[in-house]
Amino acid sequence: MNPALEVSIAEHLDTERARVDGELERILPAEDEPPASIHRALRYSVFAGGKRLRPILCLEVGRLFGAAGDSLLRIAASLELVHTYSLIHDDLPALDNDDLRRGKPSSHRVFGEALAILAGDALLTLAFEAVSQPGLVPSGRQLRLVHELAHAVGTRGGMVGGQVVDLETTGSTAAGNVLESIHAAKTGALIRASARCGAIAAGASEDGLACVSAYGEKVGLAFQIADDLLDVLGSREAVGKAVGKDGDKATYPALYGVEVSQRMAERLVAEACGALAGYGERAQRLREIAHFLIARQS
Amino acid sequence: MNPALEVSIAEHLDTERARVDGELERILPAEDEPPASIHRALRYSVFAGGKRLRPILCLEVGRLFGAAGDSLLRIAASLELVHTYSLIHDDLPALDNDDLRRGKPSSHRVFGEALAILAGDALLTLAFEAVSQPGLVPSGRQLRLVHELAHAVGTRGGMVGGQVVDLETTGSTAAGNVLESIHAAKTGALIRASARCGAIAAGASEDGLACVSAYGEKVGLAFQIADDLLDVLGSREAVGKAVGKDGDKATYPALYGVEVSQRMAERLVAEACGALAGYGERAQRLREIAHFLIARQS
Repeated sequence: MNPALEVSIAEHLDTERARVDGELERILPAEDEPPASIHRALRYSVFAGGKRLRPILCLEVGRLFGAAGDSLLRIAASLELVHTYSLIHDDLPALDNDDLRRGKPSSHRVFGEALAILAGDALLTLAFEAVSQPGLVPSGRQLRLVHELAHAVGTRGGMVGGQVVDLETTGSTAAGNVLESIHAAKTGALIRASARCGAIAAGASEDGLACVSAYGEKVGLAFQIADDLLDVLGSREAVGKAVGKDGDKATYPALYGVEVSQRMAERLVAEACGALAGYGERAQRLREIAHFLIARQS
Repeated sequence: MNPALEVSIAEHLDTERARVDGELERILPAEDEPPASIHRALRYSVFAGGKRLRPILCLEVGRLFGAAGDSLLRIAASLELVHTYSLIHDDLPALDNDDLRRGKPSSHRVFGEALAILAGDALLTLAFEAVSQPGLVPSGRQLRLVHELAHAVGTRGGMVGGQVVDLETTGSTAAGNVLESIHAAKTGALIRASARCGAIAAGASEDGLACVSAYGEKVGLAFQIADDLLDVLGSREAVGKAVGKDGDKATYPALYGVEVSQRMAERLVAEACGALAGYGERAQRLREIAHFLIARQS
């Protein structure tokens, strides 16, 4: 990749991340607002240092179709609330039992299990509250955003469904198509929905929405493969969570080996970029993001 | 109370409950739809035999303001999904650690903690998916329903907020105003929202909405006091959960004694009925429901 371009996209992502963080700051109740314990827990996890990939995809797609401004930013930030809810619940002892998340003790390690469960519930709910705030975009579109988000979280091809299949597959050797369906649901659905929400908020045509869906789907899968590879290749310091602990989980490197997995991720990124071919230069940032995601070190 | 009237309201509630159950049957994925384990868990808890109070309040208020039909029924059923989510999560070992719910083993006892956590997440999400289904009512109203529901679940005076304060007050002697604020949030918020959602769906005026809010608020608190009283007075068989286990929890009978608590509930019901005075005979069913709630045996 062109090093100049890489600096440029990295700087761009930093700027966007700061905008998203500013909006999350405005959405979340203050730490001392009663009941303070849960509000501290919400902020602890949301501001533990995520990449804000999902909001940034939403913003970038929205921009491509002509939406921008504060409304789009609020919708984008809602996606991060959903993502953070899923991290908190996934880390719970009864689920993945992870003590470390983004380099810090996970929510239940700091606040206890009860508050971690409730913090997840609260963030999921707050996402729906934020995205349904009156007057963001024409109400028909906004209702569609709510529905899109709910579907991405649900049991039918959404995050919860993916987590269930993942839990039930742990310890066994998953076939390639099972692995792909787990990832498509557990990680892919929200990434795809993030891209789609940008298009829906902007009132994109159904054709436009289809292109963005294809882009989001490929990017989501590539991102997950890159994540699996980081677990094998990355250092604990860079990744910010325990690495190598996917040992009994179905992963791409385990199933296909490191090199084949890397090529699969690269091909998916090429396909994602291809899905936006009709948008020429205007979709350049979205292509850069796709490339950036599989080149990242954490 | 007039015995003839009591029979009549009981029959009416049975009919309404059956309608709500039919709608829940249509909303929930089939038991054998993959991933089947979670769909079994959702149905297990939803069809464990609730009174469907929240949906029925929504239907009755909707009817008062001229809404009816399949759209209102779907919105009403969504409220039961939210209620069931909260029961599953509240029963978890890390929270209230209840082995029994509605006379049956609680979700985590049957399906394990991981699936119970995810089943709660799924029901909460499914509620938002159902209530945002395109075309139920004019989209501006529908968006407001989503927002209303999210607020009722959230940390600011909603169910999660109430549960947090309740957890933190356990074992101590709560003052009356703390107890009331716990109940207003933990149980009251969704009951109030249920009544409000019927009015919002029907496009009621802000004045109408204010009357219904007052009714819902009083009914919600009366219902909780009746629940506390059942815990003291009821038999385990009738209540369907362990009774007397509120021993270290702040409750009305513990704070005010049984007789004063009963009078408080009766006064609240009278106030709830009074809030609907302007609607005369048309609000008779809502008044009957309020009376019925504190006369119930389970």
